[in-house]
Amino acid sequence: MRLTFLGTGAVDAAPLRGCGCAACERARRAPERGRAPASARVDAPGVSLMLDAGRTDFGALLDAAPADALLLTHFHVDHVQGLFPFRWGLSPLLPVHAPDDPEGCADLLRNHGCLRFSTLEPFGRLAFGDLAVTAVPLCHSRPTLGYVFDHGGKRLAYLTDTLGLPEETRRFLAQRPPDAMVLDCTHAPGAGRGNHNDPDDARAAHTAVKPGRTLLTHVSHGLDDWLRAGAGALPPGMEVVADGGVLDLD
Amino acid sequence: MRLTFLGTGAVDAAPLRGCGCAACERARRAPERGRAPASARVDAPGVSLMLDAGRTDFGALLDAAPADALLLTHFHVDHVQGLFPFRWGLSPLLPVHAPDDPEGCADLLRNHGCLRFSTLEPFGRLAFGDLAVTAVPLCHSRPTLGYVFDHGGKRLAYLTDTLGLPEETRRFLAQRPPDAMVLDCTHAPGAGRGNHNDPDDARAAHTAVKPGRTLLTHVSHGLDDWLRAGAGALPPGMEVVADGGVLDLD
Repeated sequence: MRLTFLGTGAVDAAPLRGCGCAACERARRAPERGRAPASARVDAPGVSLMLDAGRTDFGALLDAAPADALLLTHFHVDHVQGLFPFRWGLSPLLPVHAPDDPEGCADLLRNHGCLRFSTLEPFGRLAFGDLAVTAVPLCHSRPTLGYVFDHGGKRLAYLTDTLGLPEETRRFLAQRPPDAMVLDCTHAPGAGRGNHNDPDDARAAHTAVKPGRTLLTHVSHGLDDWLRAGAGALPPGMEVVADGGVLDLD
Repeated sequence: MRLTFLGTGAVDAAPLRGCGCAACERARRAPERGRAPASARVDAPGVSLMLDAGRTDFGALLDAAPADALLLTHFHVDHVQGLFPFRWGLSPLLPVHAPDDPEGCADLLRNHGCLRFSTLEPFGRLAFGDLAVTAVPLCHSRPTLGYVFDHGGKRLAYLTDTLGLPEETRRFLAQRPPDAMVLDCTHAPGAGRGNHNDPDDARAAHTAVKPGRTLLTHVSHGLDDWLRAGAGALPPGMEVVADGGVLDLD
């Protein structure tokens, strides 16, 4: 099973409009150091799934490499805005699995075009051939699900957006620790705003779950600036990923 | 005064996802025949205003050529989605004049970043140097304003999204007909869905207001297909505009 990071940025990722911090200036000079909205693709033999749709070129990504379904973590704009051009679309139909959030985002649930929404409950399961998916509840400002993928004896968890982990999610993961855990780490230490992890929060989750490795995503410009300054040596087993990064679990 | 059409498309403009009609196929073969979300720029000596922000590259447009303010017609996604990256932005501040619609779109009014929203009442007026702006109410599925620009003795009206014109707007315009009237004409005849003009509705407004000329915008793939088939000779004084088109009133 392979996970490709299509984006690793928070809503205030570098380069942020009007920001002169070193991380934002670097991302302007070298666009490959910028971060698109956090999203990913999971591929296993015979199946391909998209995780979130915050890139405004989501439709083009899908045209270039069709997917069997889209899994949405939640309905904040930076996770769904790439779906707006689908609202009057005709085909192909795209199954979208999402948490139960009747408000959705703008008119997305009402004018769904070629999107076929269905609701996943916490700990709901899906199967795509040999790829099993379990939805796990997260702690965010609206209903949010992480996704745990099991394939060929390997386990991968994708957990964003969240601040910490609900007890039942922590227990589910700790019972059989993932080989890799992709985790929200938005803020620099002390810059938290209540809905996202900072490195201390991420370390606590890493320690509780004990995955093979923890890959940090949904990164703000502030965290990038803190990392750039060398302020934060992350503990062993934790690393920050970049757009375009690939994780293979075989 | 100059108006530049940054986009002339409806939410279902060509090329529409999954549509095989001749207009959509043409727009795929020749992207310059496609239509971006309806939006425009109005320039007069010393002042530049943006009209709507539905292009997802709205920020880049503004970086390339700064504007003094943005005038929003209404809060449907295809008129505001280019503002989402501004929600955590720091600078420069962008004044945004908009109709009174407390719901806004998604979290745009709550997380306004470097946007400075202010509310315009129907027939409210603004002045930018010698350029006078009057907001006029339109008939749409949520609070919507058209804008009338007066400069150097010339008058330009920008009226989308709308089905017909409210009586007080018709009267205001007919008292002093615009030299040019840019008007919603979304649907092919008979394909209306209650919130937008088709050519017959547009002709009725044209006849009632008697502008120097009427330029039709906010065009769906269906209308483009009807025009392409030569089904609809538009009456004298009415024409359909294209992305990138420029209208000079001197």
